[in-house]
Amino acid sequence: VLDSHTAEADRLLPADPATREVARHLFSRVERLPIISPHGHVDPALLRLDSPFTDAASLLVSQDHYVTRLLHADGAALDELRIDEPGSAREVWRQFCRRFDIFDGTASGYWIGRELRDVLGIDARPSADNADDLFDRVGALLATPRFRPRALFERFDITFLATTDDPLDSLEHHAALAEDPSFTGRVAPTFRPDRYIDPQAPGWRESTEALLDLPAATGPTLFERYLRALADRRQHFVSHGAVSADHGPFRPRTARLEPAEADSVLKRLLRGAADTSEAELFAAHMLHQMARMSVEDGLVMTVHSGILRNHHRPTFAAHGPDTGHDLPVRTDFVEPLRDLLEDYGTAPGFHLVLYTVDETSYSRELAPLAGFYPSVFLGAPWWFLDAPDAIRRYRETSTETAGFSRSSGFVDDTRAFCSIPSRHDVARRVEAGYLARLVVEGRLPLTRAEDLVVDLVDRAPRRAFKL
Amino acid sequence: VLDSHTAEADRLLPADPATREVARHLFSRVERLPIISPHGHVDPALLRLDSPFTDAASLLVSQDHYVTRLLHADGAALDELRIDEPGSAREVWRQFCRRFDIFDGTASGYWIGRELRDVLGIDARPSADNADDLFDRVGALLATPRFRPRALFERFDITFLATTDDPLDSLEHHAALAEDPSFTGRVAPTFRPDRYIDPQAPGWRESTEALLDLPAATGPTLFERYLRALADRRQHFVSHGAVSADHGPFRPRTARLEPAEADSVLKRLLRGAADTSEAELFAAHMLHQMARMSVEDGLVMTVHSGILRNHHRPTFAAHGPDTGHDLPVRTDFVEPLRDLLEDYGTAPGFHLVLYTVDETSYSRELAPLAGFYPSVFLGAPWWFLDAPDAIRRYRETSTETAGFSRSSGFVDDTRAFCSIPSRHDVARRVEAGYLARLVVEGRLPLTRAEDLVVDLVDRAPRRAFKL
Amino acid sequence: VLDSHTAEADRLLPADPATREVARHLFSRVERLPIISPHGHVDPALLRLDSPFTDAASLLVSQDHYVTRLLHADGAALDELRIDEPGSAREVWRQFCRRFDIFDGTASGYWIGRELRDVLGIDARPSADNADDLFDRVGALLATPRFRPRALFERFDITFLATTDDPLDSLEHHAALAEDPSFTGRVAPTFRPDRYIDPQAPGWRESTEALLDLPAATGPTLFERYLRALADRRQHFVSHGAVSADHGPFRPRTARLEPAEADSVLKRLLRGAADTSEAELFAAHMLHQMARMSVEDGLVMTVHSGILRNHHRPTFAAHGPDTGHDLPVRTDFVEPLRDLLEDYGTAPGFHLVLYTVDETSYSRELAPLAGFYPSVFLGAPWWFLDAPDAIRRYRETSTETAGFSRSSGFVDDTRAFCSIPSRHDVARRVEAGYLARLVVEGRLPLTRAEDLVVDLVDRAPRRAFKL
Repeated sequence: VLDSHTAEADRLLPADPATREVARHLFSRVERLPIISPHGHVDPALLRLDSPFTDAASLLVSQDHYVTRLLHADGAALDELRIDEPGSAREVWRQFCRRFDIFDGTASGYWIGRELRDVLGIDARPSADNADDLFDRVGALLATPRFRPRALFERFDITFLATTDDPLDSLEHHAALAEDPSFTGRVAPTFRPDRYIDPQAPGWRESTEALLDLPAATGPTLFERYLRALADRRQHFVSHGAVSADHGPFRPRTARLEPAEADSVLKRLLRGAADTSEAELFAAHMLHQMARMSVEDGLVMTVHSGILRNHHRPTFAAHGPDTGHDLPVRTDFVEPLRDLLEDYGTAPGFHLVLYTVDETSYSRELAPLAGFYPSVFLGAPWWFLDAPDAIRRYRETSTETAGFSRSSGFVDDTRAFCSIPSRHDVARRVEAGYLARLVVEGRLPLTRAEDLVVDLVDRAPRRAFKL
Repeated sequence: VLDSHTAEADRLLPADPATREVARHLFSRVERLPIISPHGHVDPALLRLDSPFTDAASLLVSQDHYVTRLLHADGAALDELRIDEPGSAREVWRQFCRRFDIFDGTASGYWIGRELRDVLGIDARPSADNADDLFDRVGALLATPRFRPRALFERFDITFLATTDDPLDSLEHHAALAEDPSFTGRVAPTFRPDRYIDPQAPGWRESTEALLDLPAATGPTLFERYLRALADRRQHFVSHGAVSADHGPFRPRTARLEPAEADSVLKRLLRGAADTSEAELFAAHMLHQMARMSVEDGLVMTVHSGILRNHHRPTFAAHGPDTGHDLPVRTDFVEPLRDLLEDYGTAPGFHLVLYTVDETSYSRELAPLAGFYPSVFLGAPWWFLDAPDAIRRYRETSTETAGFSRSSGFVDDTRAFCSIPSRHDVARRVEAGYLARLVVEGRLPLTRAEDLVVDLVDRAPRRAFKL
Repeated sequence: VLDSHTAEADRLLPADPATREVARHLFSRVERLPIISPHGHVDPALLRLDSPFTDAASLLVSQDHYVTRLLHADGAALDELRIDEPGSAREVWRQFCRRFDIFDGTASGYWIGRELRDVLGIDARPSADNADDLFDRVGALLATPRFRPRALFERFDITFLATTDDPLDSLEHHAALAEDPSFTGRVAPTFRPDRYIDPQAPGWRESTEALLDLPAATGPTLFERYLRALADRRQHFVSHGAVSADHGPFRPRTARLEPAEADSVLKRLLRGAADTSEAELFAAHMLHQMARMSVEDGLVMTVHSGILRNHHRPTFAAHGPDTGHDLPVRTDFVEPLRDLLEDYGTAPGFHLVLYTVDETSYSRELAPLAGFYPSVFLGAPWWFLDAPDAIRRYRETSTETAGFSRSSGFVDDTRAFCSIPSRHDVARRVEAGYLARLVVEGRLPLTRAEDLVVDLVDRAPRRAFKL
């Protein structure tokens, strides 16, 4: 009797029977709505080339640093999680299955369970015992046409998918997809200029020099050439369907520099003569400039801030970025963004979506900001906070101040293509559960909750990202 | 069936049936208790003159920056929300009704719904369709004697109402009310000296010069004259029934200066020769001096800290203060208040009530401070945190450390007179729900919960504010 | 009917009936498991000498600064809570009973209620009326053999108890207990070097000079002698069964100094010629050195950070440390620990258990750190956070990122010997309730929850503390 409390269909819905009943009803209104994914990291080549996924480990483990970080914490060396020679995929998968228990209670564990079940139709819990069997079964499925990326794109019912791209990217995959009559999905690039505008980002100098080599880099000063080249690349993205520009500053600081000062700082930076505080000031000024360009060219400005990248330098040296030790730090928004918001916070058409990994900022800063500035949207729970209880806390700590209309809608922000449906499913269930509680506590009419659940899934991302 | 889960009477009570039953029982003990409002911003002239409210927009929208800020975020210009010419009240009301959906899930939306229903007897949800009808119906009601301020004061059953006043205010309205045999309520002023003690507050120099022109401003040094004038004005407030002095420093920093140093800093500040750090130091010293005066004259010291005022300077320039862009920032208490608490924290009779908009400080700093210092009381959730879920979190994050006896009781802190009953009703329901959970989890005997719910509503504010 | 909602056995379990049923089932699997207490402050002499406890006030009130701080906040002078002359114990007990209501809803109140009931068999709520009767009854019980410390140790079923000890302690009590055939428990010392490695700790200079007087303090430089003496004392602890070294820096800052620089700073510190920033730098370097020694000698490194000690200096001057005004401050981990983790974060066998009193760090920093570094374990909720709702928040804010395998298991951290069973009971109930919710929300199979509840109580502390 204990194990039968929860029907499979009721997972993640609140335990209280009355609330669960309302939540189930609300969820049913959005369960099958198409997926809108306005920010993420899927490789556009995946859809352009439509090459089959090769094996379970590549699909679910080795590319996903949410997963490898926990395996590493549990004692697996990152070397052992790399797929680089024949047979290593199976070895990685065995590691994963053997250690699967450590994922209990985590968002990653939940998603992978759902991917196995809902995408692959496999209703088994990974373990040392079934590792080889699962590897073989998944491999066999992935070799069939039903599991090719485009077939899954269609099956997942994705109506809009944004990738994240380097400003100098040719966007050839996006162009090819747009021209391909056999592919009807909408896949848009996103302009992500961090390594061109943050002098402390790895590779900044080489990137900036490449930018300055572009034909569009004309003008009387170096800084002017630099700005024009950036603006030109943004136009390239706009013409390829981009709707947003994404920024990942360590701290969301903004500042205003006079053009002459910016020019002289840029010169010192390029010849390595500037110190850290000048580098930070320049980055702050460039965030301000990016807002100005967004006002001008209409790209939605998204800011993902508060992550200290590559915390463990020895691991970075050996394995490169995105290896699980990007770690959150305390993040303020109200004071750091003041200059930017004074200049552009009420500019017509400007959209600024703010994401945080410091959930204390929801009630303290982000909801109050979004509750005054027409440009500011409250970004969905991001990275470590993209999980059932954290999403619930996001609603509980922001809605009483900012309501529902100021939220960006869910963003999966993933490079793990097959996890997209599970992630959206989790968000939809949690939203339904939150709304159901408001109904049962007499704080929201049921009819409004019925509208709002659709609004959050469908209209909110369209509004925030101008789709 | 879905919409009938929650009886009107059970709103805001917990969903679990057993907990709800206990909560309903506890709430019944306080539902009709008189209202004690020891801190707020109602204009005393309202009650002295007893002029009728004019229209729905003036009553519920244009004066309430909780409401106008969200309308602004939704696209309404602040100009469109100002009532300044014939017909503009109706236009403002239409804006509000048309956009009413954005208030779903917010505290403001909940309060306005209750005001319409409980105060005005109108059981309709505002919308574009019924805007004019509602405007007319509300206008007609407000013209009747039942809806004059004094009649409402009596109907609301307010036994104590504190206003917030400028130190140089004559307090004539308070004096007149006290002498008026036809008005039996108790309306007390509150001494709010920010613009006289914080050199960074707008108008500080003019205010301070006016203060120094008072006859009481005598003494051997400028600083001594300044202190004596302040002390004299506090006495003026005491003699008009004030029970507290309220302070709104940006950060709750305190410091001790030698009198000679304070004198010289004050002089430099007045002639514009001091820098920001001196201004901050002087403000910190004056917060310390205010504590000393509270120890001497018995006024309860309340501190509302952590708000960055007038974030969007262009809006401030065009529309003045209190226009919805006062925004919370991270706030610390333990270190900044150390000097003050060392000198006065155990002084007999001293009461210091601390409010925050950074809810992380409840469990980390405020409950531990209130759990040691006999002077420190944990202020009720304030401003953005005065909402059902936030009040619940306040209890959950403070009670396990500080118990119930260290809390200030609910404070509505509003200038929206008609929202007072709704705000207290929300707090009472949430307290009842929290206590009910403790009972159902076997953490509190029911008989104690029955006492405590009354204590929190009635005895706690009397204790903290010396009523 | 209202008072019978909760069976005594169901206390602290979730209210929802289905969740409660699962929680009850899970709790039954761990309710009677032996207690593992890998960090705390019980005096080893208590068990070595086995002297009877003397009276209720000494047992439950005067030694427990969780309790005296709230009595102080309620108006009791600390003088009145000291037991120093005949009859004062009874007076202290009367104070406590008279004010018992202030403990409602607090963790301390809950523990004391359970101690009276479960340890002493007294089912009465303290009050002014029954104070003398309770004092007499408790006194009579404590005089019987059943209530001697060793008998209670056995009754409590404690399999491992760590004390906290000064590095220069002879550990004679530990040696005597280990050799005593009549005592079969395992009582281990813990190396706590704060006053030898933090130049701002009270008594640092005298302690350090005593350390340098040891025979082991040999070497070419003063700093080398200092390090060797510390390493030697750690070996002394290891040979007496210690499993961990505990550190309580104000901020968890770490830094690397060259040996020559460390030597020169140490010299300046000892002759009082160093400033605050040098003192802080030295403390940061020594935290880094302690990690190195832990890598070498295998002692688990625990860090309890973020407490401002002795906030009210007048009380410290009159009553000494541990008098209830140690107060939490905001604490960061990711940036301050970077140097330490770069050097030792992936060192084989190194264990670093991080505790916080700033619960915002669970989701933001501690879970992400523990989710990458194999050395980092997420410490159980500590001090003010060791309470039912706070423990629940700890799980809710850390599990989705770090899972269960990275947590240290419960740590009671108490000097109140008789509260140990109640504290562990609370933690077990809250863990069962949290796991039950995951089961009922379809996020965890019941069979895994059955394993995990045992894992958290039994295997987690063994794993983190290498038992």
